[in-house]
Order: sequence, then structure tokens, then C-alpha cells
Amino acid sequence: MPDAPASLLDTWRGTVLPQWVDYNGHLNDAYYMVVFSQATDALMAMIGLDEAGRKATGHSIYTLEAHINYLQEVKQDAAIVVRTQVLGSDAKRLQIYQAMHRADDDTLLAANEQMLLNVDTTAGPRAAPFAPTVLARVQMLTVAHKSLPQPKHAGRRIALPG
Amino acid sequence: MPDAPASLLDTWRGTVLPQWVDYNGHLNDAYYMVVFSQATDALMAMIGLDEAGRKATGHSIYTLEAHINYLQEVKQDAAIVVRTQVLGSDAKRLQIYQAMHRADDDTLLAANEQMLLNVDTTAGPRAAPFAPTVLARVQMLTVAHKSLPQPKHAGRRIALPG
Repeated sequence: MPDAPASLLDTWRGTVLPQWVDYNGHLNDAYYMVVFSQATDALMAMIGLDEAGRKATGHSIYTLEAHINYLQEVKQDAAIVVRTQVLGSDAKRLQIYQAMHRADDDTLLAANEQMLLNVDTTAGPRAAPFAPTVLARVQMLTVAHKSLPQPKHAGRRIALPG
Repeated sequence: MPDAPASLLDTWRGTVLPQWVDYNGHLNDAYYMVVFSQATDALMAMIGLDEAGRKATGHSIYTLEAHINYLQEVKQDAAIVVRTQVLGSDAKRLQIYQAMHRADDDTLLAANEQMLLNVDTTAGPRAAPFAPTVLARVQMLTVAHKSLPQPKHAGRRIALPG
């Protein structure tokens, strides 16, 4: 693998499907997470945990926590992209930020922070350190993304104003 | 409406559908949110914003933010229930906690905190104070639920340990 670039990863491109919208023709709040989940699958592939990698290592990634900010309504058939930033990692965890943008004018539509956990699926499943080749990629991305600005919608706690 | 009880609201009952599970036969992380979203619809009906109420007031509820904790795997066909606690409110916002439990042994499977916003859909849409009858129910629930214990998985910020 070449050096990881200090730029967000392109992890999803597509359009808002008819089965994802509500009675108003807007992306339903639950289906933002379907898109983000597929973006997480793409990130897994980038660190070596696609289907072949999962089989070879016996490992997979579980989502422990997710925090979504819904910023704009999104209409059916809208073209959207998701870009992913690695915020941090340790021996078995990966903290990421996913930004959903409108493809044409780059408007930020939603933001999702996630804590992911590496698990050994052959043993329970239970939490396990990343396999060495996976860890190398996780660390490379973590270092590369350290120079990126901290996203406004990460690290938030839900609270009423004031 | 009678006095709101100081107990969690029963907002969803059902089973995990085949189209919600991943290749391992477990509820996919994105589809927990589909269940929680339907539980939010049930809460909306309880405060007077079912379809008839939305039509009468011109108002609806948008989700601003959601924070999920994934605590247990959930298998296809599992019977689950969601119970909802009102954590707080103001003139146009409602902060809630939703707990997903296994129906048979009451195991906590996932927890979701949400910030909801009342919107006038005839004007933009834009944020608007709750209609008076809706506000009365929101305030009744907020007062009734103040005596309940604060849930462990509310008010969280995503962070690596240590």
C-alpha cells in the first residue's frame, strides 16, 4: 500500500433510492445510517477487511456507537458522496467521522461519528487486536489524518441549548 | 389525556425482519435506526402529531441528532420492544432516550438518544414552537419522566478509552 494521503477517503457515491424516502420524498432519518453503514464497509475494505480479508483473519468490525447530525433534507434521486476521516485508533478500535455531501455543490448534508471495534468472529465473537497487516493500515491512516482539521460535528454530546 | 405515568412509554413491539439482517443473520447496524425511527413515530402520535395532528397543526417533527449505543447482537425473528423516556424539552425541542430490549428476558440490546425539533412544514420548513395542545403533552411527559433514573447510555460523547 502506498503512503496514505492526508485527505478524506471517498467511501460512498450514489443516489437516494425510492425505498429510502418518507412520505415527503425526503431521505428518511433511518436511511442516512444505511448509507453510512455502506461507507463503513468501504473503509473496512480499505484497511484489508473486505470479504477475503475477513475470511483470512477471522476478524470483522462491529459498530459500538454512532452519533449522527442531520443537517439538511435530502431528496429522492439526489446524488450524494460520503467522505471519511480517521479521528483516532488504538490496538482494536477505530474512531471515524463520515461526512455526507451533495455531489453537485458539495453542501454538507449530514455528519456521522462512529466508534468501531475489531472482533474475532471465530471466538464468540469477542474483541481482539487488529491483525498486523490491518493494524499497519489503520495506523497509517490515523497518522495521515492527524493533520486534517477536527470536524465541527465530532465529539458532540446531545443537549438542549442553554 | 389522563396524567402521564412516571414510567417509560411502550413505543415499538415487533420482530427482526429478514430484510434487516446482515450476512451473519444479525440485525444490521443501520436497521436498529429503522426500529428507533418507527418508535419515534409512535411517540409523535402520543403527543398529538400523528397524521391527523400533523395535518391539523401544519407541524411535524424532525430529528436533529441521534446517538446509538450498540450493546448486543440481535438475531433475525427475535422479538423486541422499545421503551421511550423523555429526558427534557423546551418550546420547540424534545430530547428523548429509546431503549431496545429483548422481549423475552428484557436484555438491553441498544440505546438511542435523540434530539427532536418541531417544524412548521407549511413555512419552509422552519423550526416553530409546539402547537399548544402538543406542548401540553410534551410538558406533562417531561415532568412525569423527571423522577425516572437518568439512563446510563444518555449524554455520551464518542471517545477512545483512556
